[in-house]
Amino acid sequence: MSSEPVILRLHEPFTLESGEKLQEFCIAYHTYGRLNERRDNVVWVCHALTANSDVADWWPHTVEEGAFLDPEKWYVVCANIIGSHYGTTGPLHINPETGTPYYAAFPAFTIRDMVEAHRLLARELGIEGIHALVGSSVGGFQAIEWAALEPDRFGRLILIATDAKASPWTIAIDETQRMAILSDPTYGQERPDAAEAGLAAARAIGLLTYRGPEGYNLSQQDRPDAPAGSPHRACTYQRYQGEKLVRRYNAYSYVAILDAFDTHDTGRGRGGVEAALGRLSCPAIVIGITTDIIFTPAEMRRLAAMIPGAVYREIESPFGHDGFLVEHRQLNELLVPFING
Amino acid sequence: MSSEPVILRLHEPFTLESGEKLQEFCIAYHTYGRLNERRDNVVWVCHALTANSDVADWWPHTVEEGAFLDPEKWYVVCANIIGSHYGTTGPLHINPETGTPYYAAFPAFTIRDMVEAHRLLARELGIEGIHALVGSSVGGFQAIEWAALEPDRFGRLILIATDAKASPWTIAIDETQRMAILSDPTYGQERPDAAEAGLAAARAIGLLTYRGPEGYNLSQQDRPDAPAGSPHRACTYQRYQGEKLVRRYNAYSYVAILDAFDTHDTGRGRGGVEAALGRLSCPAIVIGITTDIIFTPAEMRRLAAMIPGAVYREIESPFGHDGFLVEHRQLNELLVPFING
Repeated sequence: MSSEPVILRLHEPFTLESGEKLQEFCIAYHTYGRLNERRDNVVWVCHALTANSDVADWWPHTVEEGAFLDPEKWYVVCANIIGSHYGTTGPLHINPETGTPYYAAFPAFTIRDMVEAHRLLARELGIEGIHALVGSSVGGFQAIEWAALEPDRFGRLILIATDAKASPWTIAIDETQRMAILSDPTYGQERPDAAEAGLAAARAIGLLTYRGPEGYNLSQQDRPDAPAGSPHRACTYQRYQGEKLVRRYNAYSYVAILDAFDTHDTGRGRGGVEAALGRLSCPAIVIGITTDIIFTPAEMRRLAAMIPGAVYREIESPFGHDGFLVEHRQLNELLVPFING
Repeated sequence: MSSEPVILRLHEPFTLESGEKLQEFCIAYHTYGRLNERRDNVVWVCHALTANSDVADWWPHTVEEGAFLDPEKWYVVCANIIGSHYGTTGPLHINPETGTPYYAAFPAFTIRDMVEAHRLLARELGIEGIHALVGSSVGGFQAIEWAALEPDRFGRLILIATDAKASPWTIAIDETQRMAILSDPTYGQERPDAAEAGLAAARAIGLLTYRGPEGYNLSQQDRPDAPAGSPHRACTYQRYQGEKLVRRYNAYSYVAILDAFDTHDTGRGRGGVEAALGRLSCPAIVIGITTDIIFTPAEMRRLAAMIPGAVYREIESPFGHDGFLVEHRQLNELLVPFING
């Protein structure tokens, strides 16, 4: 069951990396547990594409007693990212200059803008040092970027199935999803339900990459007793998942956030990725998933090798990239000692 | 440079596996080399999705002296598949019952229908025994199906990056491409250029699966000297490849053939895949590609294990499934001795 986020409304405009300003800006966030007196028990979680700030909802068995985000012990914070459908300022919010929602006119933003919003929220919450910074998937884009910006702020860095720079492969995946959305001519119409068919197709593309061959072949076999001529389970699954996203998300947020992912480059203005990562100093763990076809184990090993002293660990899973959501037992086994140790 | 196919016009209706009839039916095909007097030098090649019967055009360095389809030695035949854009009866052909093209009303067909058309063509060409049957990708679907139907007809079976049954994973990829095409509302309009944007998006999805992570990361890195703000090369590539297909293909053929792929099940009516493959008797070679994410090496090894006496070999390539088009040197090294030996 998801819970409503807290909304922080800023009193000043939010200036994006591009120089453009969002005149009104709010950040939706969740916290779990309590900030202790020494303010040294903060664990900051960065979320991925269509998730929200309610970590306990989208990341099963991580925010609970004995898990690595145990709220009895840690003050866990997660902020919804800019552009999202879930509370932080995004395309469906009113543009104060026009009095109508931004829709496709929402200004372009970057992973660095997401991090800037995280920093503002931390300030509002009275947080300085952060015991552990956690990012999985494109949540990891934010975590790496933030760690590179303020390497001394974090006690530990936890990077799961992610990368320090958007690769041609991930950019091609994003572009393909944009092509699917833009082939729906209702994209651009000023209504929140524009491009629903395109968004469903984009989600189906995303799912292919999240689950991969083993994930589908394990979970979407046709039932042996299915009547002849009944639709393949894999087809029903793709359509169902597309429709499910359409009911909870919007195409403008989706495209805006994909665009932001493609800007990800921890090395920009820092002499390249290796130089940027070479300056990280806290203990770091990098976790890959054996069957992940987005951030492959080979890619994850390369990432770990660029972070001084980082430990590389691999989760065994047939569920591809989604393994980080499914394999909470393995994750907790790796991360409970790491976050405490 | 591609050459025009020969067109064989049948004098009888073609009855599909469904029982529906195509009243007028023609098969476009290419041959290379000459049928020898003993009629024992036939090599039959089955093509994949958007390819055509001109093997020498789409499969570089295979139909040439010293290569495994050497036309000095072999009489190489390839027939364009039903439903295709390239000459064999398909959605853009005139439905004699209406006097207008079929478009989306083209009747559903199966891999077995494709094989039936191959058999008709073989009869017309005076071909009985076939020295070697070759299928790569979904060309392999046809080859496996044909070999299971007439196990004694073939001297050798060459299966490259393919499968004996459409897997949930490949069906999910097909369904996602259909979702992209159908999210373009011009699909269904009775014109050959319907759903161009959707078709481009579908092609971009296909490409992701053909090339995979290593393929993109190797060939689509942004140039280091690219001006700031210029589009990512991976984006340009996806759009360019989408547009390129739109110029040479049509959405109705594309959807019809995807539908046919999903029907692929060599075991249907034969007591399952293992039983069907267990009856194959000729020497067979099964070739996987190290980075293929459609027909993964693990899947290819399983296929080989089900064919009595089949040899499994792997091509080293960073280009994923497309490796079968790129790595002609490795292919020829494996296949010249196999086809001769």
